This record gives sequence, structure tokens and C-alpha cells, in this order.
Amino acid sequence: MSAAILAIGTEITRGEIVNTNASWLADTLVGLGLEVTAMEAIPDDKAQIVATLRRLSTEHQLILCTGGLGPTTDDMTSECVATLLGVPLVRDAASLEAIRERMARFGRTMATSNEKQADFPQGAQVLENRKGTAPGFGVSIGKARAFFMPGVPREMKTMFTESVSPELSPLVTDAIVQIRVKTFGMPESSVNDRLSGVESEHDVALAYRAHFPEIEVKVVARGADRTATEKRARAAADAVIERLGPDVVYGEGAITFPEAIGELLQAAGLRLGTAESCTGGLVAEVITERGGASAFFDGAIVSYANHVKTSRLGVSKELLAAHGAVSAETARAMAQGALDALGVDVAVATTGIAGPTGGSSEKPVGLVHFAVADHKGVSDRQMRFPGSREQVRKLSAFAVLALLRNVLRNGHDA
Amino acid sequence: MSAAILAIGTEITRGEIVNTNASWLADTLVGLGLEVTAMEAIPDDKAQIVATLRRLSTEHQLILCTGGLGPTTDDMTSECVATLLGVPLVRDAASLEAIRERMARFGRTMATSNEKQADFPQGAQVLENRKGTAPGFGVSIGKARAFFMPGVPREMKTMFTESVSPELSPLVTDAIVQIRVKTFGMPESSVNDRLSGVESEHDVALAYRAHFPEIEVKVVARGADRTATEKRARAAADAVIERLGPDVVYGEGAITFPEAIGELLQAAGLRLGTAESCTGGLVAEVITERGGASAFFDGAIVSYANHVKTSRLGVSKELLAAHGAVSAETARAMAQGALDALGVDVAVATTGIAGPTGGSSEKPVGLVHFAVADHKGVSDRQMRFPGSREQVRKLSAFAVLALLRNVLRNGHDA
Repeated sequence: MSAAILAIGTEITRGEIVNTNASWLADTLVGLGLEVTAMEAIPDDKAQIVATLRRLSTEHQLILCTGGLGPTTDDMTSECVATLLGVPLVRDAASLEAIRERMARFGRTMATSNEKQADFPQGAQVLENRKGTAPGFGVSIGKARAFFMPGVPREMKTMFTESVSPELSPLVTDAIVQIRVKTFGMPESSVNDRLSGVESEHDVALAYRAHFPEIEVKVVARGADRTATEKRARAAADAVIERLGPDVVYGEGAITFPEAIGELLQAAGLRLGTAESCTGGLVAEVITERGGASAFFDGAIVSYANHVKTSRLGVSKELLAAHGAVSAETARAMAQGALDALGVDVAVATTGIAGPTGGSSEKPVGLVHFAVADHKGVSDRQMRFPGSREQVRKLSAFAVLALLRNVLRNGHDA
Repeated sequence: MSAAILAIGTEITRGEIVNTNASWLADTLVGLGLEVTAMEAIPDDKAQIVATLRRLSTEHQLILCTGGLGPTTDDMTSECVATLLGVPLVRDAASLEAIRERMARFGRTMATSNEKQADFPQGAQVLENRKGTAPGFGVSIGKARAFFMPGVPREMKTMFTESVSPELSPLVTDAIVQIRVKTFGMPESSVNDRLSGVESEHDVALAYRAHFPEIEVKVVARGADRTATEKRARAAADAVIERLGPDVVYGEGAITFPEAIGELLQAAGLRLGTAESCTGGLVAEVITERGGASAFFDGAIVSYANHVKTSRLGVSKELLAAHGAVSAETARAMAQGALDALGVDVAVATTGIAGPTGGSSEKPVGLVHFAVADHKGVSDRQMRFPGSREQVRKLSAFAVLALLRNVLRNGHDA
């Protein structure tokens, strides 16, 4: 089984938008046990669309195509498929009505240009679009099965999940079990090294997916018997967790690193605040990225200017003068000051040089001090992060949360 | 001139990483006046790499390839190109030495596996890699010129800009002039409608690039004479700016919306602070995203919990009880409170329901109140944003900055 993913749209080949549909579909297909051996993107050009589909249908058994189903003259996927198959376009009354209804619901009247969205190559299997006006369709091109979906990611994902994915199960005979192990704090090459041998030992495949700065290790087991496959996946995931250790592995499944820390805080009945300099609000931002943070997070003081460190966090002018704003002492004082200022049980603080300018030989760009304080004590760390300003800030936010996780699990440094 | 972009790497065809190299290269090529008519990605498979390069070389005059130049056994681009051309791989002494030196600088010794990164198809033009160990190379395949670059975006971009781009100028005879007009606050479809006719009137092409929630309008003029082309581009850009108006257009070139606001603040000699509830630090984060914000930004108080709104921003318990945390009154009180709390000249505030839960029929998910206060007065707005929590928060952060821009330019609401 070899699958191809094709995106149709000049906005992609001109680089105006990034083709995230392709990676989402590939990742999802791999999860279903299918292999993607080609990803292509081509402009809105009739001859090229027909020729590309013809070629792909001789090389692959499955083609997933996105884009070109809209109402404008640029959108010509249905027409091209009809040409390729040598069949006429036929208007589907049910789809026409669904488009009309959907537009009416949003207070719009259907334009003539929308009508063509209900035209499909004769004999096509129509796929409902619950999130937009353009329905999709499925056809056979020679020995290949091809599905055509809208280019809007939200519409495509819903259509794939609800209408295309069920059609693919006959293509896969094996049971597929996936377990996602979430990690932070170890570079991908080291994760890779540590896990060498797990694949052959447990007869699974490991895939790595970086959501910077997190790395997800996906354990994929495949076999005829579901129960045995689940058991194998579980054993392999346990081996992954054991080899990487609890300081690196923070959870399984869809959970994010900040969410995992939120769970620890809630379990301990502790409320969190942040005091931020170089991260400029990013620590608070990642903590509140997913809903539900109000259960453990009270607020933040971003003390970008030194006078705010003094007035709002009680960092003394003497301490700032003696050690500088970027120092372990300032990070500790900021975290301690935030406990009172925000009325919280535990506080984290960051201060550093995110760059691209402002570094010196003594305090280079990328140097960040961070601290965690509660009513039992304070712990601090310093790191020198590589990369751009954006990377330094993101790594700083995650590193201070990693220190918090360490304090919550193991207490303060002795 | 037809160009193809090829990415080699199973991590891409498995959907483990998004192929941002392709869109960056396409966007850059369009800027140089070249047209990309195919984008492909294939796995690390020798037969497929050779076959794909052979096919692309018959269909295109230029091939830009990324990936497969690393030290591991998966990396086989050089070998495949040598096979395709029927030439041996030849070790390049200068590259070998450069790799050794680079690794020594980072305290590493060169492994045997790194040596193959200095092997190139006989006759290839070697391209220096200033950001990593893998050099690139250029060859002719039939009538096509092909350039092979590393898959790491930072390394690829530097190599393309410094070594590949200069090679492409003979392919373009026309002068190309681009002007990027930056906008916020108008949906893409409306921008599109407003600009209808500009292309034909001024003989330019317009391209839209969305960096959510900003939209960049790229004006591209092309002609034999550089001075005339520059004039044409300028006239078209002026027409774009006039049609969209100063409330929507905030700048030209690489400037971001927060940077444009920073420039206004600096010009007025004003220092900014933020008071944030639903945005959870995101406003401060976008303001400090680029370096230099310390010239006008002092800090933020993220008052996620109501007790922080009261204790740190002086929002009275009575006001919170009477109007609720999500109200124009609270937003105004937060902004006014932040003036004193942060010792700043002007403050912005956000409070709303970012979702996905917490909404009611009276105060639905997506409802956000925001305010801007200085020592002359307060202005507020409310919006109901569509979309996910992430989108609501991002739109809120930009909308409050848009209100700030409006106050800085036009003063407070009468």
C-alpha cells in the first residue's frame, strides 16, 4: 500500500501559505498503518492537475488530494478529474441544497459561483463538508482510489476523519496501536541514542515528533491480533519511559508540558504565579494556553524594567546594583517577591539575555537565570541557551517549568 | 523558467515535521521573479530519489533540493546524484577540513560518519555551509540546474541566500521590485475586494501572505528597466495603502504590528504597560517578541485571578461584583490601575472569555473587552471573536494594540 498526498493551489506553490495539510494527513495515515511515499503540491493549472493525477494513479494505490474545490474560477479540481476520467460533471441536488442551507444559516445568499461546488464527476462518491460549503468526493482512477477534500485545514480534517478514514480500513488488515510518550529536556539525538534497540526488542516502530521544545516519542505496534498488539505497544512504551527516566518523560497522549505541571499543582493544592523579565509574559502565556489554568494559576508580574522589579516584586536596588538584573540573586528575589505580590503558594522567575543584542563576554546572549520559590525555600538554575531570541525565550519558559516540576516532585535543592 | 522544489526525508513524508523550507524557498523564488510549478517531498529511498530527480530534470529548468546531506546512513542525496549522473563520489579536501574545524570549535571530534559529508559527485560545485557541517552542491542534470542544500532551515536559508541566489540571477532578465504592505484589522476577503483592479491598473501582481492575524499584501512589479519598475511598484503600493486606509495599513517591509506600535510610543516618548486577564501574558509576549522593547515597555500584570485584579490593579470588589470580571468597566479599571501599578504613561487591558468553556448566553466564548488608559482618559471596545482559544487570545492581543494605535494617533473617544 503506497499513498500519495497532493495539494492543489498556487497559494502553496508561491509560498504564500505553508502546506500543513500534508503533514497532518501523513501523520494520520502513518497512525492508520499506511505509508506515504510522495507528497506533491502543484499550481491551479488544468493540464498539470490532470497530468499529475494520471501519473500518481499509476504509482500509488491511494491518493489524498486537498484544495481546488472552492467557488472561484481558480478552483478546478472537479473539472480536471472529470476530464481525466472522461466523464461529464453532474450536479448533485442534495449537495446544492446543503450549500444553500449552510449559507442561509450564516445570513448569506448563494451566488451562482457557489453552484459549481455541487458539480462532481459522474459516478463520484460525494463526501459531506460539515465545516464549510465545499463538499468533497471520492473516485477510482485506474487501480488507485482517490479522495478530494477542501484546502481549508479545519474542513479537511473533519472530512477526512468522518468520511475518508472509514473508507481506508479495508486497505489495512493489521491492528495498529499507538502510544505517545511526551518528553522535555533531552535533545532529540540523545533521546534517539537512549532508545536504540527498543524497536527490534519489542517489534514496534518509534517515530519522533518535535513540537519545539518538546519531543514526542510515538510508539507504533502493528499486528493481526489487537490484544497482543496492545500488549506489545504497552511493553515498548514502558521501556521507552524507563530508559528516558521520569525527569524527561512527563506524560502520555495529548497532554502538554504546562498541563502536566498544572496537574501536579492541582494534586498538591498549590496556586502558581510567575515573575518574568526576559520571557516577557511567555511563561504565563504557555501556562494559560489551554483552558482550565484558572484552577491553579493566579497571575504574573512581568518586570521588564528594573523599577518594576523593585516596586512590584520588592527586589532591592542594592541587590540589583551588586549583582545585576541578570543574576541568580535577582531571579531568587523575583520569585520570592512574587509569592507575596501575587498571594500564591509557589512562584517561578526568569531573568536573562534573550538577544539578539545586549550580551557581553561575561553575560552572553542566551544566558538565563531562573528560580522557583515557595514558603519552604528557593531553588535556582542557570542555563546558556543556543538559538534565536524566540528559541531562547521558549526554552527559558520550559526550563523554569522543568525546575518547578523538579521542586514539586523532589523538593528544593539541599 | 520553471522551478521545482524537492524535499528528501522520511521525517517529512511521515508527517513528523512540516516542510516549511518549501514555502520559504517558493516565496523567495517568486521574489526573484521565478515561478515554482512543482513542490515534492519523498522518503529516504535511493531508487525513488534517483527517479524523481530524473523526472524533475526533464520538466523543469531549476531544481532546488533540501535534505539528505547529513552524516547518517539515511542521508544519501550525494550518492543518488552521483548514480543519476553516472559519476563517482569524490572527497573534497577543503570541505573535510571545514567540517573538522567547525566540530573542533564546538568541542567535538569528527566521527567517520561525518567524513562522507565531504563527498560530492565528481564535477559538482561545492556550496559552503556557514551554519552547520553539511556543505551543499550544485550540478547540471540534463538541461536543468540543480542545487542541493541541507534540510535544517537555518542552514538552508543562509546557503540559499549566500551561494545559490547569486547563481540564479542569469535566469532572470527582468528587474523585479517588491513592496510589502503590512495590514491588520480587515479580513483577507475584504482586502482582496478593496484591491480589485490594482493589478491591471498598475501592471503589477499582488500576493497575500497571512501571518495570523496579520495580512501582508505583496506588490510585485516586473520590467526591463529598473527605474521604471520601481516607480510602478511605488505607485501600486501607494494605491494599495490609499484603498485600505491608515487604520488598516500600519507599515511597510519587515516591520511587525507590535514593532509599529513601539515606534509610535517611542516617537511620543511614552512608556507602556499591560494588564491582562484572558490573554494571560500574550500581549506582553508579542510586544517583547522582537528585541528593543525595553525602549518603551516596562512590564505587565497578569491578573488571571480576581484577587490579583483587586490587590495589584486596584479594581474594587464592588465593581467586580456589579459588572463581572468580563465587562467594559473591569477592562477600564484594569487599564487605569496599571498606570500606577507599573508607573507607566499608557496601559492596555484585556478581559474576556477565551474558551473553550466558561461561556454563557449573556457572555459567550469569544467575548472580549479591552481598554486603553493614559493620564488624559480611557477608551474601551468589545469584540466577539470567532475561532479556537488560541485564535481568540491572539486576536485579543492584536485588537487591544489596534485600539492603542488608534488612541495614539487620534486621541481618546469623544
